[in-house]
Amino acid sequence: MHVIDLIRKKRDGRELSTEEIEFLVAGTARQTISEAQLAAWLMAAFLRGLSESELEALTAAMRFSGEVFMRSPGGRRTVDKHSTGGVGDKTSFLVAPIAAAAGLAVPMISGRALGHTGGTLDKLETIPGFRTQLSGAETRRVLEECGLVMIGQTADIVPADRVLYDLRDRTGTVESPWLICASIMSKKLAEGLDGLVLDVKTGSGAFLKDPAVARFLATLMVRTGEEAGTRTAALMTSMDQPLGRFAGNWIEVWESMELLRGERHPLNEDLRELSLVLAGWMIHLGGEAADAAAGRAIAEARMNDGSAYRAFLRVVAAQGGDTSIFERPGDFHAPKFHRELRAQRSGTITRMDCEQMGWAVQRLGAGREKAGEPVAAHAGIEMYAKLGSSVQVGEPLCLMFTDEKARFAEAKRLLTGAIFIDDGPAVIPPLIGEILTRDSENAKNPLPPPLSRTVG
Amino acid sequence: MHVIDLIRKKRDGRELSTEEIEFLVAGTARQTISEAQLAAWLMAAFLRGLSESELEALTAAMRFSGEVFMRSPGGRRTVDKHSTGGVGDKTSFLVAPIAAAAGLAVPMISGRALGHTGGTLDKLETIPGFRTQLSGAETRRVLEECGLVMIGQTADIVPADRVLYDLRDRTGTVESPWLICASIMSKKLAEGLDGLVLDVKTGSGAFLKDPAVARFLATLMVRTGEEAGTRTAALMTSMDQPLGRFAGNWIEVWESMELLRGERHPLNEDLRELSLVLAGWMIHLGGEAADAAAGRAIAEARMNDGSAYRAFLRVVAAQGGDTSIFERPGDFHAPKFHRELRAQRSGTITRMDCEQMGWAVQRLGAGREKAGEPVAAHAGIEMYAKLGSSVQVGEPLCLMFTDEKARFAEAKRLLTGAIFIDDGPAVIPPLIGEILTRDSENAKNPLPPPLSRTVG
Repeated sequence: MHVIDLIRKKRDGRELSTEEIEFLVAGTARQTISEAQLAAWLMAAFLRGLSESELEALTAAMRFSGEVFMRSPGGRRTVDKHSTGGVGDKTSFLVAPIAAAAGLAVPMISGRALGHTGGTLDKLETIPGFRTQLSGAETRRVLEECGLVMIGQTADIVPADRVLYDLRDRTGTVESPWLICASIMSKKLAEGLDGLVLDVKTGSGAFLKDPAVARFLATLMVRTGEEAGTRTAALMTSMDQPLGRFAGNWIEVWESMELLRGERHPLNEDLRELSLVLAGWMIHLGGEAADAAAGRAIAEARMNDGSAYRAFLRVVAAQGGDTSIFERPGDFHAPKFHRELRAQRSGTITRMDCEQMGWAVQRLGAGREKAGEPVAAHAGIEMYAKLGSSVQVGEPLCLMFTDEKARFAEAKRLLTGAIFIDDGPAVIPPLIGEILTRDSENAKNPLPPPLSRTVG
Repeated sequence: MHVIDLIRKKRDGRELSTEEIEFLVAGTARQTISEAQLAAWLMAAFLRGLSESELEALTAAMRFSGEVFMRSPGGRRTVDKHSTGGVGDKTSFLVAPIAAAAGLAVPMISGRALGHTGGTLDKLETIPGFRTQLSGAETRRVLEECGLVMIGQTADIVPADRVLYDLRDRTGTVESPWLICASIMSKKLAEGLDGLVLDVKTGSGAFLKDPAVARFLATLMVRTGEEAGTRTAALMTSMDQPLGRFAGNWIEVWESMELLRGERHPLNEDLRELSLVLAGWMIHLGGEAADAAAGRAIAEARMNDGSAYRAFLRVVAAQGGDTSIFERPGDFHAPKFHRELRAQRSGTITRMDCEQMGWAVQRLGAGREKAGEPVAAHAGIEMYAKLGSSVQVGEPLCLMFTDEKARFAEAKRLLTGAIFIDDGPAVIPPLIGEILTRDSENAKNPLPPPLSRTVG
């Protein structure tokens, strides 16, 4: 088998066999195929798309390119949630302990901040002492003890994806629904899941801005998960404004813990609601509830009785974190500088460029310019108003905080241009849109023809 | 400017500016852009195609990535011919000295055997002492003295193409009309030409087997040449059987010299005719004849009066070659082994798989498996019959010759499967089909939509 023939085949829109895909992925993981040849194949795949069987083969070959987790550790069924990334998206800190408290096991492997979106791993690492790099034995022990483990990607899990992702980032082949699906699903399926909930973001802060492309990705992921024997559902959710009150690193963990302790706030009801619905689906797909509504009721009960909060404290302690900071969380949040952003006119907030707001958070120090850079634990923003809020000229819209004063100027510029105040009423997209499952997607989601679904 | 943005732009079907193309080519020539990024851009360009202005910019940027020749050395107008490659295609040895004898200057830069096609450079180097690597000063001196110089590509001429061509070969991005056009035309235009004739092969032995793609390439090249100020014509010619009587290395130089000396043979009338027509166009586009027909008449006169033959001997001597071998050319042609291939039935030769025949010539030792390998001077085939010939069972169809006996088996297998003997009459494609010039191509050749013209 020659790589050049596999490139030509994909280039000309012909279908690769499972053996050919396996050859390609094995050469990728072992790094025996040149980057130039892989890049050419990736661009051809980006523009031609993958067939159903190619996508299934690619995901499986990537999944099994490294270590995979066993199912049902300690007799618990295994579930997880994956989000395509957003601003202020901290549902992981809520849904994972809720599902654990509901009797499931959650082996959550998370990523770092990327571009305008935050990273669960960066947020977790603001907890003093918390270790996200555990050995395989430690991971299994924490998962069995706590029903939950929260770690980063390691060199042993889906090594083919590490090579491909790095290359896609450099070669303009990131935003392909097929390649995104294979990347996400290979890693999630390597966790050995019984159930998986996908939070597919749409709107101004999502990576995939075209709702049709985002929906198509969701259908691919649901089908790929179900074909691999994992019950899978995808929720299309709004990323038209930051989720909840805060966007940053530690501050997002704090906000989540407030909710788990039952402290509610009008500006993060969206976060609470989405977390309960996602957790309800995890509980349902994990077999602990007959449907998602029953799952949601269990989720709310585990939040209200404090068992989810205790599950979170338990995993923090098990992974070496200092739980005392949760006793007076406000004391720990100590950015050096604060500055308010004020409304330049009176009216209603009708629209936010949520991606721009994500970049503002990144520029305040919460994100990174390139891979490997450190992030600031205490930089970010607090929202004082959200879509639909009425504001008066001069009224503060949000609070920016950072450890480096010089960062305010750029963040202020970005935020000012991103929050639109208008006379008209705001048309707010629903927080949760369509929900795709194996039943819905088969009937209603034909594959788009190759090349019509490429994204700008 | 960032390479990643230029990849995304091409990927999404948007048009790159001249400055962006120049940035890309400069980074290619200096090798500051990674092969992975270039490969991704090439595949996107392969599948999306190039706009008129992108192709013009790419060709110009490549052309000027290295040394370029001056026009009209020693007061002569400069012309050249380029062929897309074939089997037994030796017209260079005829048209170049004919054009020189007609008062033009021909700075011919040629390539080596590639795949199933022969290389002018390999054929020339069978002449003892003949040097194809000359310094810039030597090249100019020989061109001024002889009106003709025949050299190989150097590191200084269109360095961007050397990088791109090597990469395209490895990444499945060779067969793109746009990229082929830029590669050919950047090198030809670097020669500083007043006129250029393109011999675009079609049929079973051509690189581009689809006549529509070959014709499209021809229109691109004519337009690109004319836009750069070089009078350009393209002849669509048949490569449905080897051209002339011989295919090999030295033997092709010999066959050409026989014709230049006026020694005709029924089986190479096609070679003689095509050479005269091509030379006629060179003479016309170089301004020495009012039209191609008048040019052909001049070409035939220069052939008949021996001046073309003398021009060839002069340039061989000027480039260090031993001209004594032309006195008794048959003596020099001394392959160690000969074997005849015989007809397995009686009938008419109705079809040849000319590419297979090219591979047979390569396997006899005349070509190479990979770049850098040596080729045998005296391996090849002599045709005893051509398309339309009537043959009797057992009658020899061709003669194979090689220095290594073991090579016969594979060549015999290939040739046997490539020559079809049938009852029916042969339908022989015309030797010269459509001729495209600036006048014809503008009117009749709209650009095909991107992606419809990719080739398998």
